[in-house]
Amino acid sequence: MAIVLGDNQYGKAENHIVRIYRDTPRHEIHDVTVSTALRGDFSAAHLSGDQSRVLPTDTQKQTAHAFAKEKGLISIEDYGLALARHFVDDIEPVDGARIEIEEHAWQRVTVDGVEHNHTWVRSGQEVRTAAVTVEGTGAQQRTWVIGGLKDLVILKSTGSEFAGFLVDEYTTLTPTHDRVMATSLVARWRFIGTEIDWEATYAGVKQIIVEQFAVVQSLALQQTLYEMGRAVLERYPTIAEIRFSAPNRHHFPYDLSPFGLENNNEVFHAADRPYGLIQATVTRDDAPEAGSAWQSAAGLA
Amino acid sequence: MAIVLGDNQYGKAENHIVRIYRDTPRHEIHDVTVSTALRGDFSAAHLSGDQSRVLPTDTQKQTAHAFAKEKGLISIEDYGLALARHFVDDIEPVDGARIEIEEHAWQRVTVDGVEHNHTWVRSGQEVRTAAVTVEGTGAQQRTWVIGGLKDLVILKSTGSEFAGFLVDEYTTLTPTHDRVMATSLVARWRFIGTEIDWEATYAGVKQIIVEQFAVVQSLALQQTLYEMGRAVLERYPTIAEIRFSAPNRHHFPYDLSPFGLENNNEVFHAADRPYGLIQATVTRDDAPEAGSAWQSAAGLA
Amino acid sequence: MAIVLGDNQYGKAENHIVRIYRDTPRHEIHDVTVSTALRGDFSAAHLSGDQSRVLPTDTQKQTAHAFAKEKGLISIEDYGLALARHFVDDIEPVDGARIEIEEHAWQRVTVDGVEHNHTWVRSGQEVRTAAVTVEGTGAQQRTWVIGGLKDLVILKSTGSEFAGFLVDEYTTLTPTHDRVMATSLVARWRFIGTEIDWEATYAGVKQIIVEQFAVVQSLALQQTLYEMGRAVLERYPTIAEIRFSAPNRHHFPYDLSPFGLENNNEVFHAADRPYGLIQATVTRDDAPEAGSAWQSAAGLA
Amino acid sequence: MAIVLGDNQYGKAENHIVRIYRDTPRHEIHDVTVSTALRGDFSAAHLSGDQSRVLPTDTQKQTAHAFAKEKGLISIEDYGLALARHFVDDIEPVDGARIEIEEHAWQRVTVDGVEHNHTWVRSGQEVRTAAVTVEGTGAQQRTWVIGGLKDLVILKSTGSEFAGFLVDEYTTLTPTHDRVMATSLVARWRFIGTEIDWEATYAGVKQIIVEQFAVVQSLALQQTLYEMGRAVLERYPTIAEIRFSAPNRHHFPYDLSPFGLENNNEVFHAADRPYGLIQATVTRDDAPEAGSAWQSAAGLA
Repeated sequence: MAIVLGDNQYGKAENHIVRIYRDTPRHEIHDVTVSTALRGDFSAAHLSGDQSRVLPTDTQKQTAHAFAKEKGLISIEDYGLALARHFVDDIEPVDGARIEIEEHAWQRVTVDGVEHNHTWVRSGQEVRTAAVTVEGTGAQQRTWVIGGLKDLVILKSTGSEFAGFLVDEYTTLTPTHDRVMATSLVARWRFIGTEIDWEATYAGVKQIIVEQFAVVQSLALQQTLYEMGRAVLERYPTIAEIRFSAPNRHHFPYDLSPFGLENNNEVFHAADRPYGLIQATVTRDDAPEAGSAWQSAAGLA
Repeated sequence: MAIVLGDNQYGKAENHIVRIYRDTPRHEIHDVTVSTALRGDFSAAHLSGDQSRVLPTDTQKQTAHAFAKEKGLISIEDYGLALARHFVDDIEPVDGARIEIEEHAWQRVTVDGVEHNHTWVRSGQEVRTAAVTVEGTGAQQRTWVIGGLKDLVILKSTGSEFAGFLVDEYTTLTPTHDRVMATSLVARWRFIGTEIDWEATYAGVKQIIVEQFAVVQSLALQQTLYEMGRAVLERYPTIAEIRFSAPNRHHFPYDLSPFGLENNNEVFHAADRPYGLIQATVTRDDAPEAGSAWQSAAGLA
Repeated sequence: MAIVLGDNQYGKAENHIVRIYRDTPRHEIHDVTVSTALRGDFSAAHLSGDQSRVLPTDTQKQTAHAFAKEKGLISIEDYGLALARHFVDDIEPVDGARIEIEEHAWQRVTVDGVEHNHTWVRSGQEVRTAAVTVEGTGAQQRTWVIGGLKDLVILKSTGSEFAGFLVDEYTTLTPTHDRVMATSLVARWRFIGTEIDWEATYAGVKQIIVEQFAVVQSLALQQTLYEMGRAVLERYPTIAEIRFSAPNRHHFPYDLSPFGLENNNEVFHAADRPYGLIQATVTRDDAPEAGSAWQSAAGLA
Repeated sequence: MAIVLGDNQYGKAENHIVRIYRDTPRHEIHDVTVSTALRGDFSAAHLSGDQSRVLPTDTQKQTAHAFAKEKGLISIEDYGLALARHFVDDIEPVDGARIEIEEHAWQRVTVDGVEHNHTWVRSGQEVRTAAVTVEGTGAQQRTWVIGGLKDLVILKSTGSEFAGFLVDEYTTLTPTHDRVMATSLVARWRFIGTEIDWEATYAGVKQIIVEQFAVVQSLALQQTLYEMGRAVLERYPTIAEIRFSAPNRHHFPYDLSPFGLENNNEVFHAADRPYGLIQATVTRDDAPEAGSAWQSAAGLA
């Protein structure tokens, strides 16, 4: 038996970069948080402290900022691809790179009904995400792009049921055919290829997700997630699979009967914890293999 | 010398209440966090543990939920007034009540271009706030209402300067005539009276704040705040004073010169801490006195 | 009627400074977050954008770091006094300064049972706080020092009751003579004078607070707070008053009866929100006046 | 091509359960946050909303609380095993269960130098973690237990270097042979078997980690992590592998030269973001296969 080094990676997490385009009086803003992670044979650094094959995390930070100017920062997927390919192609010891990006949207303000050229308010709705992985060089190079969103808080005040479930000795829940359903949705979708209209696809996927949440008469959050995923895959042949993580943010009808008041699903206590957590993948049965696509920068442990 | 009880208050903080109006197929949602605090002579509870004059915080929670049905929950200022007056008027030992409310806005989703009846996404932009204080009973009763907002993150990519400042031996900052200015604004305005169109006033004040931030050529955040306040007071005679707390969220131009790249205010590092913190009040010189208006529920220490 | 500038202040918030003393192989560490706020006549900056009387917040940051070396950083009260006096005494337009400090404690690790010279783990227990206010110059100068702690999470599993309370139509709570009582305590104490053994006083006050929480048979959190305060004032003549803010972190006995299990205060659900919030001041009846002592750096709105 | 359901799981996240043992006057406290996730063939719920094979997340919550009494809650690994085995063995549609637990330590207070029977302060240091996975029934049943810790914030003020690293065109970092090294460590270790002295092992692993951090002259965080892992595996034959995730919490020496002050690693700015993120696994080359051990409850996306 020997003790050996296993999987490892390293990088710079959460570079908060704001890129302003100001070539005309009408400026544009892109506000992102970027995390980079490099993989390869860094065993000398671990085993003996030899850093000669280690590109510092500080350099990764410099590169992420420089690329916002040098390569531009419009679609986060393209920016991530440029960064990942650079690390793998140009830095010899690097065999794989993982770039994870979160984009915070800003909404142009209006003054006297007209959009302002250089002022925005942060649109606090969902956060757009991307994760790009590149492995290997030359003809063997493989590339995966995952688009996504998180913190999309969505609620319907009717059109949701939960009944007919399995009952055991610890079950006290009563079935319901009308409840509030709310979640703070995380969705991530894996692309086939990299020749994608990233902006149009993002807007389209988000709209489908929101619409399905609204129109499906939900018998369970599981069913809603599946219908979202099915609709996305049917519409976008460039998406191989989509994964959802959906906390069930419980809204409990408050018991007003001690005060002689009826509560027909009108007054709710919104609980913080615990919450249900439903996770599901909807996929094509002929999807190309996922490889390292889902191995996150923060994901070894 | 004797040791005595000083100022004290108690209540239930952060009741998260969601109120759905569902009298027609087009539902409405109001999502608030309510904190109550009661003041009066509760010395027996402190000095000897005698609770006979103490209305439990649990009862305050029940009341806050019940009132969402009984009195309704449309404008948070009205809901707060109803709660505060109830505690002071109906519960004998209570001399004063402070109700603080935060409202989380939801935005109706569209399906096929049409607004949906019962589905919303959380609009993560600013949080609307209110603080209602009622003191005394009968003809002596005094009432203060404060409206407000927080977490309004706003940024301009030009039109902001900082120069001509005081220089001492610890000053290394260089002046600038073109910088990004960004803040996560807190604003609170004190009303004169309670016969107010709360909804229209809120929308109007927010719009003025945003517009002034955009159009004022800012020589300092202080100046921008003052211009916001002045414009609000000029427009709304029902507002006695307005207070701002504005962190200066620094966006530092990133030094790209080591890489042979120019950075004409295009690439920024957005820093978390430390941040500037600018606070200012703009008031009428004949404003009615503030009394307990600004003494917050969480504010004894 | 005219619109005028009211109260205002500005500064740099949350400078995170770590000071290492390394004059001998046994290093010492002091880890603080410092916020500065300056008061005075800064109306020109607000009204016309004239910064000539404004010492930049960046300079305040430089000064806070420089003073960690120049004046030293051992007791946060002394460090705060040095900073506050400097701003008021040396910067002409500054009439008042408020320095707020949080100190994060570190605990020396042991290796083979021996304390290590230069390695610590962060002691995540309570945060020590200080707030220093200096106003005016020369013989008129006034100084207030407030010491304190926050995030002291403390719990007792018995020895706490809540019964005999006021009952109204919204009261459903049942009295109890045995419950869990838990809080995340904030305490702040105002000193008389500045010639204090800060370290010994801090340790002593904390110990008294903890002991009183443990030994008092509590009829309500109010009573426990009062007993803490009384004991502190009796022991420390240098403390004029002490203020507490105590969320009542509810631990609800979980209903296990549906499963045929007894629950004699053994299994609890610890709720996040809402929580009771009890606040109280214990003071000497001959305490010197508080002046600006309690006006916080973040406190205008 | 068809659209199909892929990986999925569901459960109740973050049940905050406090268990008091009070059979003698000297009480004991165990304070945990428990998340459960069930795996199996739940396709009917996803595809058609049929819940007949779905044990509600509410039931999982009830069970987690009931087991704190029925099975007891001393070592979190044992409690997790009891829960996981119950779901897999007793609930027919469940093929696999994942239980993740975080334990928040409390420290008994002393009164007059004597440990108090029923009062504690929360020890805010590291959080202990466990993750138990059970798959299959009868002779085919497989079980994995992972112990761990997170939020162990540890710092050394010397004995750390970073030099000799790879330099490219984006590298501006200067090498150093004396720096502060600090991290907020996450460590997770996979056990071989389930007949383990959980308490002694936890204490021992933590102590080894802390000691190695202190005594290794670190040429890079990578090397420190490897030395920690090697020492743990050498000492504990019951541990197959250990994984680390270590943010490099940068402490930058503050430039005091503009003020004529020397800074010999005495005054640091502690930065929040970005941070280095180093991750590594140390393993036995003959470790039993990990199977589903590392597939987290929150881990599908």
